[in-house]
Amino acid sequence: MPRELIALKPRKLILREYQEKKLQADEIRIKTEFSSPKHGTESHVYRGTSPTHEKTFDPHYRLFLAREETASPFPRPLGNMSTGTVIEAGGKVKKFKAGDRVFGHLPIRETYTVKENQINHLPAGMSSEEAVCLDPAYFALAGIRDANIKLGERVAIFGLGAIGLMATQMAKLSGATIIFASDPLPIRRRLAEKYGVDRTLDPTSEDVGLEIKKASQDKGVDVAIEVSGSYSALQDAIRSVHYCGRVVTVSFYQGSGSALRLSEEWHHNR
Amino acid sequence: MPRELIALKPRKLILREYQEKKLQADEIRIKTEFSSPKHGTESHVYRGTSPTHEKTFDPHYRLFLAREETASPFPRPLGNMSTGTVIEAGGKVKKFKAGDRVFGHLPIRETYTVKENQINHLPAGMSSEEAVCLDPAYFALAGIRDANIKLGERVAIFGLGAIGLMATQMAKLSGATIIFASDPLPIRRRLAEKYGVDRTLDPTSEDVGLEIKKASQDKGVDVAIEVSGSYSALQDAIRSVHYCGRVVTVSFYQGSGSALRLSEEWHHNR
Repeated sequence: MPRELIALKPRKLILREYQEKKLQADEIRIKTEFSSPKHGTESHVYRGTSPTHEKTFDPHYRLFLAREETASPFPRPLGNMSTGTVIEAGGKVKKFKAGDRVFGHLPIRETYTVKENQINHLPAGMSSEEAVCLDPAYFALAGIRDANIKLGERVAIFGLGAIGLMATQMAKLSGATIIFASDPLPIRRRLAEKYGVDRTLDPTSEDVGLEIKKASQDKGVDVAIEVSGSYSALQDAIRSVHYCGRVVTVSFYQGSGSALRLSEEWHHNR
Repeated sequence: MPRELIALKPRKLILREYQEKKLQADEIRIKTEFSSPKHGTESHVYRGTSPTHEKTFDPHYRLFLAREETASPFPRPLGNMSTGTVIEAGGKVKKFKAGDRVFGHLPIRETYTVKENQINHLPAGMSSEEAVCLDPAYFALAGIRDANIKLGERVAIFGLGAIGLMATQMAKLSGATIIFASDPLPIRRRLAEKYGVDRTLDPTSEDVGLEIKKASQDKGVDVAIEVSGSYSALQDAIRSVHYCGRVVTVSFYQGSGSALRLSEEWHHNR
């Protein structure tokens, strides 16, 4: 029997056998080629610290509301995007046939039975590894578009996971001429330097806001983009911009903002 | 001898006698008519919870930096704006003469000896009570200008102190057609209703975000303006706007954002 990755409860994962459901006429069956989690977001799902564990997101009001005591989000699947090959298509399916290579937002399991609007054809020449990067690339691009970068501006990126590393490259493509990037992990900082970051910073050993100001005519950057999900990195981001600078948050922050102090630069530099 | 209001240490106020300093040729001496504190900000100075007690704001870098152990912000004066009459002007003073009525950002004391660029003439017809409202009016106007209100938009104001009550009136003047306002104090809500607020809400007994959504086609307001300085009110403000709505903060928040949860609507509704 095929297997799927399931979080039974916080920090308890298993590969569980399952029986694929019967194919309906408007459904497609897919055999998985490649699957990927989304590290930051899914770490919180795995640890049970996501707001979706405590509350329910009401899509009508777009509000987080109290979850009923009896409802638990566990067990729940993990995984963000997958690619695969169509192995069977129901009689009413129009867009897909057996043998088609597809991708979509699908959790980590060996097969899927889905409706055709849940997936897309894998573009010719796109690898599975590339396809599963589309979701983080979308978030990086959204942050860059929010940032409204103009030719010659100074930009700082906070957090150099997949989204941050993509955002640094997109910032350069948007015309930024001086790019700073902050992350505690040396391996990520080295990658960022390879991708054209002018100066990387380590928030565990430097006052990142102060160092960025010193390195930009004592004024600060025009735009800070926070993609790490850390509230203390958001505080650094707020400290790094000049008076009335732009601060863009992309991150799915978790829990309360105890590391955030809106009394300080947030209030004084607007 | 004249007296001044001094905070000797947190929560310890005295009216202390002082000797006015010798008048220099470029200085003016003023006898106070009327003085006002600024309630929200100065409550934090009085209580010792302002960030200026723990850190020093460096005006060059515009950053809060660690304060040297030996430096204490106390004793310090309290008070925001004052009006008065010039009683003496030095020989090099050009703009002012004895008898002129003036106002400025001056603490609560019986006399002042200041340079001429520290004060302004009280405009003809403006009372002292009106003059000391210029500072909060400036903050209300800044919030309204940041909010960029367009004719017919729905606006919600969080916090109905002096700034919030002015902001509600300015929002109406800016073309807002439906205005919500939230504050825990009934006397303030009644004043807001008098000033044209369509619906007031009590954050201590209502889910303000949900109620504002229900009262605006289940979508939320276009703009939320947070002027209370409470992080939980900021969370309510974030919850009250529609998808991609505008949230404006005017407030001088204090301490850490433990009541703020950027994991929730902040992330999901952008």
